[in-house]
Amino acid sequence: MSAVPVPNTDSMLLRHDHDGVATLTLNRPNQFNSLSFEMLEALIAAVDEIARDDSVRVVVLAGEGKAFCAGHDLKEMRANHTHDFQQRLFRLCGKFMMKLTELPQPVIARVHGIATAAGCQLVSMCDLAVASDVARFAVSGINVGLFCATPGVGLSRNMGRKEAFEMLVTGDFIDAHEARRRGLINRVVPLEQLDAEIAKLAASIVAKSPVAIRMGKQMFYKQIEMGMDAAYQMAAETMACNAMCEDAAEGIDAFIAKRKPEWKGR
Amino acid sequence: MSAVPVPNTDSMLLRHDHDGVATLTLNRPNQFNSLSFEMLEALIAAVDEIARDDSVRVVVLAGEGKAFCAGHDLKEMRANHTHDFQQRLFRLCGKFMMKLTELPQPVIARVHGIATAAGCQLVSMCDLAVASDVARFAVSGINVGLFCATPGVGLSRNMGRKEAFEMLVTGDFIDAHEARRRGLINRVVPLEQLDAEIAKLAASIVAKSPVAIRMGKQMFYKQIEMGMDAAYQMAAETMACNAMCEDAAEGIDAFIAKRKPEWKGR
Amino acid sequence: MSAVPVPNTDSMLLRHDHDGVATLTLNRPNQFNSLSFEMLEALIAAVDEIARDDSVRVVVLAGEGKAFCAGHDLKEMRANHTHDFQQRLFRLCGKFMMKLTELPQPVIARVHGIATAAGCQLVSMCDLAVASDVARFAVSGINVGLFCATPGVGLSRNMGRKEAFEMLVTGDFIDAHEARRRGLINRVVPLEQLDAEIAKLAASIVAKSPVAIRMGKQMFYKQIEMGMDAAYQMAAETMACNAMCEDAAEGIDAFIAKRKPEWKGR
Repeated sequence: MSAVPVPNTDSMLLRHDHDGVATLTLNRPNQFNSLSFEMLEALIAAVDEIARDDSVRVVVLAGEGKAFCAGHDLKEMRANHTHDFQQRLFRLCGKFMMKLTELPQPVIARVHGIATAAGCQLVSMCDLAVASDVARFAVSGINVGLFCATPGVGLSRNMGRKEAFEMLVTGDFIDAHEARRRGLINRVVPLEQLDAEIAKLAASIVAKSPVAIRMGKQMFYKQIEMGMDAAYQMAAETMACNAMCEDAAEGIDAFIAKRKPEWKGR
Repeated sequence: MSAVPVPNTDSMLLRHDHDGVATLTLNRPNQFNSLSFEMLEALIAAVDEIARDDSVRVVVLAGEGKAFCAGHDLKEMRANHTHDFQQRLFRLCGKFMMKLTELPQPVIARVHGIATAAGCQLVSMCDLAVASDVARFAVSGINVGLFCATPGVGLSRNMGRKEAFEMLVTGDFIDAHEARRRGLINRVVPLEQLDAEIAKLAASIVAKSPVAIRMGKQMFYKQIEMGMDAAYQMAAETMACNAMCEDAAEGIDAFIAKRKPEWKGR
Repeated sequence: MSAVPVPNTDSMLLRHDHDGVATLTLNRPNQFNSLSFEMLEALIAAVDEIARDDSVRVVVLAGEGKAFCAGHDLKEMRANHTHDFQQRLFRLCGKFMMKLTELPQPVIARVHGIATAAGCQLVSMCDLAVASDVARFAVSGINVGLFCATPGVGLSRNMGRKEAFEMLVTGDFIDAHEARRRGLINRVVPLEQLDAEIAKLAASIVAKSPVAIRMGKQMFYKQIEMGMDAAYQMAAETMACNAMCEDAAEGIDAFIAKRKPEWKGR
């Protein structure tokens, strides 16, 4: 359990910690949790804080209200119609998205409702995603004359290029089962089982060695962009270091002795 | 509607324009629309012309007769059995295939029958593909001692590497449903609904802002070959520029006002 | 048929040659065929020998006993608990895995039982894989505090990144049908049909031109790591060379004459 206090529920971003799991909840339900400039800054601050907090082992990203997240705040974009603002907005957004993969702890998207445009991008950039069977996904910017270029970065790294391209040029929705088939999400459950399913997945990760998860996640996103030979050289070094950790020695000894391991590492 | 005249039906490549959609039809039905040197030159000329033609918003690539396209012209290859000819042929083919992704307008393959070897490559290199449920796909060069190396480039960027490798070393066919499952095509419909389905998909794209589609397609294929961080930086710049376009302003205003947008941009 | 003698069945790695197919069988059934340092050296020696053996056209990688392969030898790792040993072990493992893709002949994994950790990596790095419907797959190192970093390299090049990440951080098993859906294996059959299915797949490849298969496999793994434009340039050169081979001339002539080709090339 973390010492971090439950924040004021008036905040646009809520954090709740329980059993090693920090749940960040987008709390602008009337704006469908849109990613305004301020919301992105709040998300970056929250993620930076979690990165330094060893008590957090898994992050869940959730949304309050009907939608998971409907993307950028279109009214804000129109009220700040300068190239400078748009550039700062999309750079900030990209910076936050990259932080999700750079964060030492795995991040699970909890997708209970629609995820559109940058909201769909958010799902694509989480390490894992569990959705309710009523959730739907679209990169719908094209419907307002704004091609979802940045969401396309995450989307095309989750599913096939023709599948991603079709969503980007049509703006059409796919349902949760199709999203799972394509690789955008990991699991689909009825809405009433969503929290239980996420708790189960999170608990499974919390039960693992923290140091192994941290080294593994960092390595995973680095190697995926390398040629295979270079990837193997880096991964071999990661495994050799990991194997020398106290936790791996304990884990292997426990396995051989058929007992439960006790992790020491942070 | 385009001012381009309907070409002579004796041509090996037909072009027909309707409602912003240019349909290019391979017209060598007795040779299963094989991609002879001359056919590739005709395709390049047609695509170059379309690239400069703002009246065209979507391209459909179709085949006349029983097959969609059976790949290269084997008789021509044997009649010109020099390394120089083969090299010029495969370079020309690769040049045409790259032009499909470089073309500002999205390209939809209309696959009514078999697509083999470079014909299967053609499907893989279109941005989108819709097939009839009787269409079948193979990279069958290996059956004549000629590994489908260039088709393998497109194929392995549409489906998993083991799935692509199996097709390349066995030459076996997959059906349209399996092709969709793997990501080679987007949609499968009964043959009698093929034109309606393609018209629907094309119309959906024609209804979008031309400038947004153009910027988006160009960005899509660039970012997909980049590391994720660099991809986000480029995509953020694309979105900032797109957001400053007249069409995005109109699109967002229309969305907020709950009216239909009117695109100005070309 | 090869002149290579059937090895002593006391060996940890067996080789049996039949009709152009060399079957390598991991023969440490009581250790679930774990990849000890010595086993990896034996595999490298066997693969190096096969690379120089023109009589071998396809390699099948199989396991004796209940499991296909359960990964590294944990007892050996604990008995040699130095960074130097771990580094040499994982480098040797990576070297062997790369050799599977560098080998001129296609390699088929015959997965009859569980494939875990480096055993699952082994499946991911074979060109093709056929599994029985009772086979199961996991990258379970995380359960003993050792993130499967090197298996992750192969795994994330076979399936979607979220699918791979989930397996890596949970250690959970997937069954053979799910493994096929994700692209980790090509075919699933009942256990009693496993050998027949592999024999059929192997025979299909043995029936092809050896020189075309060799050029094709080499090209396949090179191009997949290149940008598309560079990949096409290399593939076009491969096809031009392949087209000038005796086998391609024979293959095309046979196709035109509607007779069976006779391959000459080695």
